[in-house]
Parts: sequence; C-alpha cells; structure tokens
Amino acid sequence: MKIDIIGQGNVGSHLAKALGDKADTVSVNSRTLAGLRADADLYLISVSDDAIANVAKKLKQKVNKNGIVAHTSGTTPLSSLKILSNPTGVFYPLQTFTKGIELDYAEIPFFIEAADKRTEDFLMDTARLISRNVRVADSVRRRELHVASVFCCNFSNHLWALAAGWLNERGLDFKTLLPLIKETTRKAGNGRPFENQTGPAVRHDQGVLNAHLQALEMDPELQDIYSLLSLSIMNHHPNK
Amino acid sequence: MKIDIIGQGNVGSHLAKALGDKADTVSVNSRTLAGLRADADLYLISVSDDAIANVAKKLKQKVNKNGIVAHTSGTTPLSSLKILSNPTGVFYPLQTFTKGIELDYAEIPFFIEAADKRTEDFLMDTARLISRNVRVADSVRRRELHVASVFCCNFSNHLWALAAGWLNERGLDFKTLLPLIKETTRKAGNGRPFENQTGPAVRHDQGVLNAHLQALEMDPELQDIYSLLSLSIMNHHPNK
Repeated sequence: MKIDIIGQGNVGSHLAKALGDKADTVSVNSRTLAGLRADADLYLISVSDDAIANVAKKLKQKVNKNGIVAHTSGTTPLSSLKILSNPTGVFYPLQTFTKGIELDYAEIPFFIEAADKRTEDFLMDTARLISRNVRVADSVRRRELHVASVFCCNFSNHLWALAAGWLNERGLDFKTLLPLIKETTRKAGNGRPFENQTGPAVRHDQGVLNAHLQALEMDPELQDIYSLLSLSIMNHHPNK
Repeated sequence: MKIDIIGQGNVGSHLAKALGDKADTVSVNSRTLAGLRADADLYLISVSDDAIANVAKKLKQKVNKNGIVAHTSGTTPLSSLKILSNPTGVFYPLQTFTKGIELDYAEIPFFIEAADKRTEDFLMDTARLISRNVRVADSVRRRELHVASVFCCNFSNHLWALAAGWLNERGLDFKTLLPLIKETTRKAGNGRPFENQTGPAVRHDQGVLNAHLQALEMDPELQDIYSLLSLSIMNHHPNK
C-alpha cells in the first residue's frame, strides 16, 4: 500500500513514522508537494485546518482519481474535501503530538469518517495498522471530541505553563509540582474527575480563595483565570 | 514518638495512615477531640483553614505546653497558631489527597516552617519518616506554592470534569480522552509545559477557535472558559 503523507508538522511527522513500518510511505512537503506520487492508494492531508482546502485543490491537478484523500483534522468537516472527485474521508488521531517526542501509537483513539462505506473500511483498516482503538465518528461528533480535547490537553497544559512561569518568577521550580500533577492524572483514570475534585473552591473555603486572589494581585491575567475557574468549581459543586 | 492527628478528612486520614507505621499515632475527631492525649510530642491540625485557629484555641486548654503543634495548610500562615504557648510550626504536604485512594507518600514534597530551629528540625525529621522530598518554606512561599498547585491540580481536574460532562451529555465517554491526558502529563515531565503547547490557540488558528466557540454556543460557561484560556495561550505565544 502506498501512502503519501502531506504535511511535515507535529501530526504529519508522527503519522509518517507510525505508518512507515506498515506501508510504503512518502512524507511530502505541503507547499512544494515535491515527491508526491500520482498513484498512491491513500493521501493523508496533515496541515493546519485553514490550509486543507487549498491542498485538496492542488491534489486535484496532480493525483489519480481513485486514490483516497483524507485529512487528519478534528474540527474541519469532511466537506472541505468536496472539490475532489476522489473518494474522501477523515483520519483523526485524538492525541497531542510533538515532533521528535516518542509516543505509544497503539493507545491513540482514531476517529474515521468517509463519504462511502468502502472508503470507511479502508481508513479503518489503515488506522488499525497503528492503533487498537479505532472508531467511526461523523464531523459533528469529531468536533465535539476535539473541543473536549482542547479542554483536557491544551488548557490543562497552559495552566501548568502559567504555574511554571509564576513559580519561576519566584525562584521556585515547576518540577516540585510534578508529583501533584501525576497524582491528579492518575486519579482521573477512574473516569470520574468530578468526584475527584479537591482544593479550596470545592470546599467553598472563601478565606483561602481570598488569600490566593490577593497573592495574585500583581498578575491580573492569573487572577481572572483563578476567579473564573474557582467560580465554575463552586457552581458545579454547590455547598452542602 | 506520640503524634495526635486532629482532623479525619482527606489530608488527616492520609497522614494518620502514612505516619501510623512509624510512630504512635492517634486520629482525633476535630469536633469532639475524643481520644486526644495531653502528652503527645506532636499535634498535627489537619482541618479546613477557617477552623485552624479554633482548634488551636481548644488545644490550649487540653495539652501540655511542650508538645509541638503544627497545621498542614498551604495558605494559612504560621501565625494562626500564635494563641498557643507551645512550639508551633507548619507541616504542609503538596499533594491532592482523596480519602481511601492509595498514594505513594515517598514522592510527596513536604514544606516545613517553624517558629524556632529545634521545632523545624523536629518537623523535618518527622516529614522524612514519610517522604524523600522535605524542604523549608516560609508562609509567603508556601502560599505561592499552594496557588500554583491549585492551577496545576484543582483547575486542570475541573477542566477534565467539564469535558467529561460535555461528552456525557452527547453520549460520549470521558475515558476516550485518557490517553491524551496521560500523554499531556507525560510530556510535562520535561519541566517545560510552555514549550509543549499544541492545539488551535498556540497556532492562532482562528477558524478552529471560531468553530469551537460555535460548538459551545449552548453552554456559555464553557464558552467563557474557552475564550479566556485561548486568549491567554495566544498572549503567551504571540504569532511568529
């Protein structure tokens, strides 16, 4: 099987690596399209969301009509590929990828969508070359999963980055917090983060909340985030 | 060594367990004080922050003046114990504790403060019975660490809880996101969450951000949090 992976960013480079052992793959620069094969079985478009339609347009000129074309985005709908006469689909890995950081591909949930059943089966089988966790999801559902993943990954990580900055400014080390972060994550493994909640907001401990807002006085951005998230915790956990 | 642990909540119950193998411990109900010993070497007050001063007041009537009294709070200053003539201190474990959920105590960072050097040494030695990671921190620094731990633990966990609720309402399972959460946490082990950031906000991908805000249209609370945290990510990662 010939797979051309278009885009060499975080996702594209990992897919090239993960599929490289299982298929005849080529990693293609999305701007030059140098090395693109006209007769690949599968084209995976792994570029930023706003570039997908443009890459699809360029592929229309360059590749045979029977090759399957799929993008890897969580939020862009399948219809973004409608300019093509090829069979089209989506091949979405729900994971955070960083170039050069190794990963256990077998655990990554893949969500597949396709315009027809044969293409869906092909993309499911291809995802199963990498992962044990492959499912079908339409564009609406995939976007919902992507929104949730932003909360769970990007936003959590940003809170850690803010905490790291705050500690570094005070000569303290973010790594001190790693046992806490690891334990918080370990507890989430029970699937019930709501029930795991601890801390001043869930206890409605106004004295501690005020002391923390005071500590954050010189940093209005952190203060805003502290207020909004504490209020949200209190709303979701009303005082008994 | 006799240790009376006053308070049987998340922290108190874990400290009773962790210290139970190493010392002669009693777990004391903070309201009744039933079982409290007048001649303990150490009293650990592990109650909600706003109850600490009140427990200290009650201890003043009931215990010998040479027993060390320490609380376990991140944010309440040492001075909250000043009503006592006893040697006083703080014995703060930076971790999230849930009653009944087991924990590797050896990894927990403990932060110690005391009014005098002898008490500090005593509390350091006691913490070392449990943990390999024991340090001194004054009340200001301890509060700063506590603020950071709220961002890293309580707030991250709340984002996961919000995502879990959002997915459940749509018949989707939070556990689908566990590989993503675990990988995000694993990456943070490099100590540089800022550099690890991925997702639409760090890419300044306005199309995806708008699509997500639209998906969240029926949930203004999630929409507010999404906006604030995405803006914060974009502020901290200006477009190249």
